[in-house]
Amino acid sequence: MKEKKSRTQLVADYDTLQRIFHRPEDEQSRNVLTKYMEQILFGLHDFLQKHVGITEEIPLKDLAEQFTSSKIARTPVKKLADVITEIIEEIAPQAVNVSSPYFIGHMTSAIPFFMVHLSTIVAALNQNQVKIETSKVVSVYERQVLAKIHRLLFNLDESFYKTHIQKPESALGSFVEDGTLANLSALWVARNRLLPSESGYSGAERDGMVRAMHDRGLKKLTILVSELGHYSIRKSAGVLGLGYDAITPIPVDGENRIDLKELKRTLEKHQRDPETAVMAVIGIAGTTETGAVDPLPTMAELCHEFGGIHFHVDAAWGGPVLLSERYRGLLKGIESADSVTIDGHKQFYLPMTNGMVFFRDPQAMDAVAYNAAYINRPGSVDLGIRSLAGSRAANCLILGSALDIMGAEGYALLIDHGIELARIFAKEIIARPMFELVTAPELNILTYRLVPNELHVSQGSTAATNKDVRLQLLNDINIKVQRMQREAGKSFVSRTTLRRSDQPDTVVLRVVLMNHRTTPEILNTILDEQEDIYLNRIAPTLSLNKIS
Amino acid sequence: MKEKKSRTQLVADYDTLQRIFHRPEDEQSRNVLTKYMEQILFGLHDFLQKHVGITEEIPLKDLAEQFTSSKIARTPVKKLADVITEIIEEIAPQAVNVSSPYFIGHMTSAIPFFMVHLSTIVAALNQNQVKIETSKVVSVYERQVLAKIHRLLFNLDESFYKTHIQKPESALGSFVEDGTLANLSALWVARNRLLPSESGYSGAERDGMVRAMHDRGLKKLTILVSELGHYSIRKSAGVLGLGYDAITPIPVDGENRIDLKELKRTLEKHQRDPETAVMAVIGIAGTTETGAVDPLPTMAELCHEFGGIHFHVDAAWGGPVLLSERYRGLLKGIESADSVTIDGHKQFYLPMTNGMVFFRDPQAMDAVAYNAAYINRPGSVDLGIRSLAGSRAANCLILGSALDIMGAEGYALLIDHGIELARIFAKEIIARPMFELVTAPELNILTYRLVPNELHVSQGSTAATNKDVRLQLLNDINIKVQRMQREAGKSFVSRTTLRRSDQPDTVVLRVVLMNHRTTPEILNTILDEQEDIYLNRIAPTLSLNKIS
Repeated sequence: MKEKKSRTQLVADYDTLQRIFHRPEDEQSRNVLTKYMEQILFGLHDFLQKHVGITEEIPLKDLAEQFTSSKIARTPVKKLADVITEIIEEIAPQAVNVSSPYFIGHMTSAIPFFMVHLSTIVAALNQNQVKIETSKVVSVYERQVLAKIHRLLFNLDESFYKTHIQKPESALGSFVEDGTLANLSALWVARNRLLPSESGYSGAERDGMVRAMHDRGLKKLTILVSELGHYSIRKSAGVLGLGYDAITPIPVDGENRIDLKELKRTLEKHQRDPETAVMAVIGIAGTTETGAVDPLPTMAELCHEFGGIHFHVDAAWGGPVLLSERYRGLLKGIESADSVTIDGHKQFYLPMTNGMVFFRDPQAMDAVAYNAAYINRPGSVDLGIRSLAGSRAANCLILGSALDIMGAEGYALLIDHGIELARIFAKEIIARPMFELVTAPELNILTYRLVPNELHVSQGSTAATNKDVRLQLLNDINIKVQRMQREAGKSFVSRTTLRRSDQPDTVVLRVVLMNHRTTPEILNTILDEQEDIYLNRIAPTLSLNKIS
Repeated sequence: MKEKKSRTQLVADYDTLQRIFHRPEDEQSRNVLTKYMEQILFGLHDFLQKHVGITEEIPLKDLAEQFTSSKIARTPVKKLADVITEIIEEIAPQAVNVSSPYFIGHMTSAIPFFMVHLSTIVAALNQNQVKIETSKVVSVYERQVLAKIHRLLFNLDESFYKTHIQKPESALGSFVEDGTLANLSALWVARNRLLPSESGYSGAERDGMVRAMHDRGLKKLTILVSELGHYSIRKSAGVLGLGYDAITPIPVDGENRIDLKELKRTLEKHQRDPETAVMAVIGIAGTTETGAVDPLPTMAELCHEFGGIHFHVDAAWGGPVLLSERYRGLLKGIESADSVTIDGHKQFYLPMTNGMVFFRDPQAMDAVAYNAAYINRPGSVDLGIRSLAGSRAANCLILGSALDIMGAEGYALLIDHGIELARIFAKEIIARPMFELVTAPELNILTYRLVPNELHVSQGSTAATNKDVRLQLLNDINIKVQRMQREAGKSFVSRTTLRRSDQPDTVVLRVVLMNHRTTPEILNTILDEQEDIYLNRIAPTLSLNKIS
């Protein structure tokens, strides 16, 4: 946004400062602050209601040209009222209306309105969870919230929680920025537990990877995860000094779940190699691309069988399905994990961002404990001792309150709606001749693609019979459909390229169903629009029969 | 908090769900939502005004006993109104009133009221900065904010910013959760640039530390930082696979700045050792314990002289001092850094949390670029390609708006106030016979301790002449003073143990002056209280003349 001078010159002086640290001492100040808040809550809401689209059509390049000022203004250039108006009138229309029921492409969606109120509380209290002296009761509150999710995942007995919930020496988990940092935290713990500092051996955390590996005669660590594993796992291996090539991608079966035979074969192979150690096996509870859930019980057994390998479950997406009595069976086996990743800003419907990592063993996080003289003395109750970050916001208040307001049943309504809507949508896709369901929904994610009549395998056109040409054509068409629909701005599905070892790279349209206002009718409209885009804008540019 | 049943049983059904995703469609809903927001804004504020204390006196152990419920309620147990009331009436009194002008112990303080409004906007828009498709204009907005801070730090010319501010292939920096993750990100980049994947050599990121080091005949990497370096630097070395013993702490001089002779000697020593490489030298712009600023210009020269070592500056605390025309000279040399850490929730007065890392070279972050098929295609403009985290909130909107509302001059008022108040306070401490200034303030942090008359070195008591006994006594006394004052709940200073190579461990009281409402009078009251605590509660329990 280009900076405009206010009509009256704003100045920074001590009186202004007093006003800026506005204290609602009198009725008038209160009215002003309330007015601003109403403007934010309703002005923004009304705007998004009026502009039903996902975003306006201005190309990003043009927008970028409006944000090229690198100078901080010397004197104040805007009042809060101007800022709010500008955000509502100029930023919001060009941001993404993630709360639209037509926005079904990513794992970001509408959030309950009360989440905004709870975020406001967190900002107003401004606690820092790094230590008791800047959070006090909110530290013990956070421990309770972590215990609730830990119990949802691992379901240990009452006496376990009685013992550990508030025991300073125990840690059931940690809030982190997001799923990536949760995966990183889990693998950090796994690495340090595999390579601890002990008699005769250097430890990875203290002495580094080179010495710790050398002392054990190891050349390589590896992490086994299906080829549909999230890219944060590769990133974590890179950060942790294993190198991202340490990830061994295991092929998936026809239902996008890790191939157990391949997993076992790989474990056996590594077992025979004294210079390689398997640092972790990762199961996915809701792959990012297809929503599939790996066969967690058997994976847990294999980890046990092969000498107690750290079993991590990436449930960033799927974790909250455990709140649904109807569908929690889909996550069977998660209770046997050593660690689990959850994203609060996904299916707990929290505002951006809120990640969590949990450990079955309340002593696991000792492997990553740090302290400093001015903060977090050893043996203290400070949560910062065992977290990757230092300063942390009191987001636990949002999750804790949301659990009370929604109850498991409230969340289950949302979860069930998404899963059931995905099944209905899958049927619709199958019923339409112009579409092909590529991956059926196990949770509330599915992928499909547009396959024009001329390219149906049964059609026998030249293009359809040449497999490579056909795939290339379909990929191109689906890339175009997705882009044109996104640019039209009325609805949004995402696209991805499925890369699976036994199949050629396939471009698919990807749908994530988590907005309770998304209905089968809306989904039909979205398919109609895609058909229309293909028939009227893409097909005329192709000459399918001429392609050899 | 024990969960209480609401008077009327709450249920989770589809109608409730519609209400929970409350849409302020009619006047009545709007009134309800506004009422809640007023309750949050003013209820919380009034409460904190009434309870001028830092926190109530209930011991943490007793509080912990109230938070031992590990079960998620099946049905909803609270309405939003109940949750808000409970937070105001039961949580807030036991949380920490970090906005009190008597809370001068940590780097957390009062924030301008508008920051709460801006946080509300971020939550309501709920953008995800990981990619354009979930943030669009807010991605280019973020780039502009990063460029503004980059320019504040590095002050490169207009054409540099014109070129890079919106160029997708360039990255001037990244928002991260906090200073710890900023330091980690900077060192991650430094590691990968020292050990890149290139002809004949494995890269750390791809192939791991063991192979990358082996190929270069290296046994060890080291990071040089003064012994006052933040513990997140050790943690980062641990995470990155160097091991935290890779940190070589360099002694400080009498003013708590890195000893340049020692630094040079250490660089020379490592230069002679072909098996060790210096991965980074870290300068501190505002040490956590004493607020000292290292001699950055000479450090930068040394890094250059010794072959272009990565020079990182941890300016988590001090960075915003650059906004003050009067004091920016204290940070001279920061413009020569390769990377810089800044904490927005410290002296930019943003709500928890907001960290940032900056790189002088807009291509530096290529060393940590990742992408995935369903997100962040190579060459795309998505910010998530080069960030440690995946999902990220649009906190850039808060910082960007705050810069417009405050202007550099507005921030300078706060910065100058803190620095000048610290100097006044230092004089007062020196003037009082019962106190000793341990580290004079360079920025707005100082440390001191209470030294009773009987333990003045000139007193010649047995205790005062035995150095070890005297130190032990002083340490014990200051630990008690700090704890008793904290427990009394009216004011709060922190304490730390200064550990410097040439001196015995010394317990000191630590003061961080960043609240514009903290006055010299308030500081005097705090010293009075400490004197009173010593004279009336501690001295009677000691028999100083009997100690041998």
